Amino acid sequence: MPSYKAPVDEVVFLLNDVFDISRYGSLPGFAESTPDLVEAILAEAAKFCEEALQPLNQVGDRAGCVRRQDGEVETPPGFKDAYRAFVAGGWVGLAAPTEFGGQGLPYTLAAIVNEFASSANMAFAMYPGLSQGALAALLTHGSEAQKKIFAPKLISGAWSGTMNLTESHCGTDLGMLKTKAVLNGDGSYALFGEKIFISAGEHDLAENIIHLVLARIEGAPAGVKGISLFVAPKFLIEADGALGARNKLACGSIEHKMGIHGNSTCVMNYDGAKGWLIGEANKGLNAMFVMMNEARLGVAIQGLAISEVAYQNAAAYAKDRLQGRSLSGPKFPEKPADPIIVHPDVRRNLMSIRAFNEAARALVLWTALRSDIAHRSDDKAALQAAADHLSLLTPVLKGVLTDVGFDNAVRAQQVFGGHGYIAEWGMEQFVRDARIAMIYEGANGIQALDLVGRKLARDGGRAIMSFFGEIRSFIKENEAEPRLKPYLAGLKQGADHLEQATLWFMQNAMAKPDNAGAGSYDYMHLFGLVALGFMWAQITKAALARLAKGDGQASAMEAKLLTGKYFIERIMPETGAHLARITAGADAIMALPAELF
Amino acid sequence: MPSYKAPVDEVVFLLNDVFDISRYGSLPGFAESTPDLVEAILAEAAKFCEEALQPLNQVGDRAGCVRRQDGEVETPPGFKDAYRAFVAGGWVGLAAPTEFGGQGLPYTLAAIVNEFASSANMAFAMYPGLSQGALAALLTHGSEAQKKIFAPKLISGAWSGTMNLTESHCGTDLGMLKTKAVLNGDGSYALFGEKIFISAGEHDLAENIIHLVLARIEGAPAGVKGISLFVAPKFLIEADGALGARNKLACGSIEHKMGIHGNSTCVMNYDGAKGWLIGEANKGLNAMFVMMNEARLGVAIQGLAISEVAYQNAAAYAKDRLQGRSLSGPKFPEKPADPIIVHPDVRRNLMSIRAFNEAARALVLWTALRSDIAHRSDDKAALQAAADHLSLLTPVLKGVLTDVGFDNAVRAQQVFGGHGYIAEWGMEQFVRDARIAMIYEGANGIQALDLVGRKLARDGGRAIMSFFGEIRSFIKENEAEPRLKPYLAGLKQGADHLEQATLWFMQNAMAKPDNAGAGSYDYMHLFGLVALGFMWAQITKAALARLAKGDGQASAMEAKLLTGKYFIERIMPETGAHLARITAGADAIMALPAELF
Repeated sequence: MPSYKAPVDEVVFLLNDVFDISRYGSLPGFAESTPDLVEAILAEAAKFCEEALQPLNQVGDRAGCVRRQDGEVETPPGFKDAYRAFVAGGWVGLAAPTEFGGQGLPYTLAAIVNEFASSANMAFAMYPGLSQGALAALLTHGSEAQKKIFAPKLISGAWSGTMNLTESHCGTDLGMLKTKAVLNGDGSYALFGEKIFISAGEHDLAENIIHLVLARIEGAPAGVKGISLFVAPKFLIEADGALGARNKLACGSIEHKMGIHGNSTCVMNYDGAKGWLIGEANKGLNAMFVMMNEARLGVAIQGLAISEVAYQNAAAYAKDRLQGRSLSGPKFPEKPADPIIVHPDVRRNLMSIRAFNEAARALVLWTALRSDIAHRSDDKAALQAAADHLSLLTPVLKGVLTDVGFDNAVRAQQVFGGHGYIAEWGMEQFVRDARIAMIYEGANGIQALDLVGRKLARDGGRAIMSFFGEIRSFIKENEAEPRLKPYLAGLKQGADHLEQATLWFMQNAMAKPDNAGAGSYDYMHLFGLVALGFMWAQITKAALARLAKGDGQASAMEAKLLTGKYFIERIMPETGAHLARITAGADAIMALPAELF
Repeated sequence: MPSYKAPVDEVVFLLNDVFDISRYGSLPGFAESTPDLVEAILAEAAKFCEEALQPLNQVGDRAGCVRRQDGEVETPPGFKDAYRAFVAGGWVGLAAPTEFGGQGLPYTLAAIVNEFASSANMAFAMYPGLSQGALAALLTHGSEAQKKIFAPKLISGAWSGTMNLTESHCGTDLGMLKTKAVLNGDGSYALFGEKIFISAGEHDLAENIIHLVLARIEGAPAGVKGISLFVAPKFLIEADGALGARNKLACGSIEHKMGIHGNSTCVMNYDGAKGWLIGEANKGLNAMFVMMNEARLGVAIQGLAISEVAYQNAAAYAKDRLQGRSLSGPKFPEKPADPIIVHPDVRRNLMSIRAFNEAARALVLWTALRSDIAHRSDDKAALQAAADHLSLLTPVLKGVLTDVGFDNAVRAQQVFGGHGYIAEWGMEQFVRDARIAMIYEGANGIQALDLVGRKLARDGGRAIMSFFGEIRSFIKENEAEPRLKPYLAGLKQGADHLEQATLWFMQNAMAKPDNAGAGSYDYMHLFGLVALGFMWAQITKAALARLAKGDGQASAMEAKLLTGKYFIERIMPETGAHLARITAGADAIMALPAELF
């Protein structure tokens, strides 16, 4: 049975040594986040995730969610108690506004807790995760009255939230959606339609479920400009806040899916359900994008989270499993065989995963800190730069962290040999669970297109230029340090490739947009490698500084230098192949007539 | 629900236009294999796989195999009838010797039928597949009496076979195995021990199950030099060939695994089961290797097979599913959206898969033809060259075709968006089923080590030098053809990288074997790319020749030229990254102390 230990020390190192969060003291929530408090919160979150959530991970996979005849859904054994404890711990509202009962702490901390919880039990973590998404949309676009009704309950966890976008004939192309909203006499709308793939759509964890639903008001324009966002609770809410009648919406069935069995993925039927408009009519997509950006970062974190827990179990197995002898002669001649961690190819798998995990976590925290600035700073320039960063990096994180997270789950499974294929060991569940993250919240191909087709050129390329600027400055500022040289050289090479690719798009994609589409996926991954390489440069710099201090962390810091070296030598060379593919253009991709496929 | 159409035209093109099997007429079995007969056999196999096996694929996944209280195992509904029809069609013995009731046709044909069957229903195809492996070991190492008893029944399919290698504490490192063989008074042995992961270990398809079991004779030397191979039937066989008493062996349980649910993966208990030695005592591993090489090629074919069926379904979906508009303007303005095959990134996924499939199938046939030469030729030089090829290419095919086959199943699943994650659509089953092929018959890391550590240097590097020689000759002979230039240039670049990598090992791995281990996986994939690139060069040459004939195949042949172009432009560039990783050496991989993982 797999185990999990939250990487608290890693996080503390990143927050203090790499990103120095003490610099953010002027932002709301950061002053309160003293190092002691942060460590206490992390320790508490770690304990809860390790002891309460992780033991339910395989239980949830096996039992799945069960829809009863009456349409109610039962979550796997133990989930109700765990949810009760989760909300009692205040975890849903960690970063939520204090005026609605939240703790007002940095979003960055919530992102970390999300990683821990998703490593321990991804299917479980999705329930409160969706509440946070719904909350974000309500806080940004809801009326004051709506905020007052829904925010405190979502934050306390008494109620949970969902996102209802997809219909069977449309997911990516929401302009085609058919769910209809008809104005009632009382200002509410009656919603009619069927939504699919609704995570946490129906369950027994919370008293009420608050559905955010995209629908088209009768007579609205066709396409995306006629879509509005509605809030439709499972139970209607009385004037005094008490739960009222059952709304006319129900879970029609639970999807049978590859993984995340512990989360109920529902077909939701709206048969005249009462819903209330959030924000302006026909501007529902904008409101939903708030939710989606937050959700996309959350999904990126899932990729990292599975990669981390899969790594931990593979590393433990590799140190324990005896099989064969080291190529350079027996290392444990007294044992019947050496532990498989002596084999270079086993280490290659493990090093690949950890070289990703450490930098991916840094990338998440870097971006989460920018999110805190974007949402809390009163310095306009800093706010704009942070918003640019978020807008540019969100598709990269979503696409790259989930793709590599899945690959890493597969790598970790491979370390187990035949046992990796057997359910009991838990590794194959990580693979199945991780797979969804590449698909939902915008399939990764869509992330790549968002990056190349929308984010690159926005505001005259301001965000990407600023990204390059940061990297170039960092290289320049640190090139005198001899021990950083190989890391900076690798980063520079990657950044050069990324600049060449960017330039190639500028020269070749305007006249022929398919050139952008054909190279977008490689560009996203090239971008990811450069961003991760930049994280490694910062991590190794911080590790060197820490080594210089001589405070007893020498072996951990040397491990970082070695892992970073692996990243530069073995992972960064991929940037050249990406560049070659991008500059090959669209011809070989677009030429084949559809009927010959 | 997924569908499948066997790629008969593809195979015919490869056999006739690319490999010109008419050249092999002097080999036993080939003269009979007239073009008409081959096409008739392929058509018959296609029909059976499409109509009888494919409809049972999801059924098998859902129902799985059930072990009854009495230890007997029930296969999924429909499997018994399908097996009856499969053996009645003579498919098990297609390439088996006529003296035991086989049809004596080329192994190459059997390999093709294996592809079709594995695409249609991989879990099912494993039952007769294991019989073929057991048969190969018995025919090579069994006594005349053993051949007479077992071969006709395995060939007719009345009995089936298994391979019993793995024990819970050893899979890769068979030297550690503990199953014990004690000599009985009658010349048989009593087998004691527990084997795990025994595919088709117990089932209700055949009258008897012939287990080939690795065990250690009491008093035998430790390690691999004390392992013997035994044959232990489920039912003992009377002197007259009738089935006798139940042997003391039984399925202890069925493993719960990620995929191939339709195949019973058993824990097998040997409690004094009667077994008879195959070949010499303590030379069991050699005998087993015969079986394993055949099986490894069979597993490589599974990788291709899943990639093919996943592609077919993804291509059909991409042509059908309407979502979004082409980047270059609507292609079907009268429809609510364009089919997603207009999107470059969807095409990138499809082109990646087909560019692999067509070349991988060529690689399988090329290698299968060499296997026919190696087993049937009386020309010593040809036989040696073919045996060299088999020995060198088998780990490459096993490792690369199963890795890429799995990746392609994931790519095809991605084309379906959210639907790809839902069991009903069948795409996630392909991913789960394909995953095992990277693990069993020697995990792919072991294949890489076999290639680099044993196959490269064998006989002074004769096999690899001959491989390079063939490629260089082909390039030289064809470089005058202008339309072949880009394909040959890409191939040459890849072959240069492979030669550099080979040279690097020669210079750096003798003194430091970890350098070989650290680069072995990249080397295997680099080798695979070059071999696939070589196939594309031959395919495009044949396609050009066919185009010149002007026999109405123009669009299919142009499709090959385009798909080959995609391979060269978008897949071959990976060779440079592999070379960079190989020449980075073992340092960054081996330096981290085990306790820091």
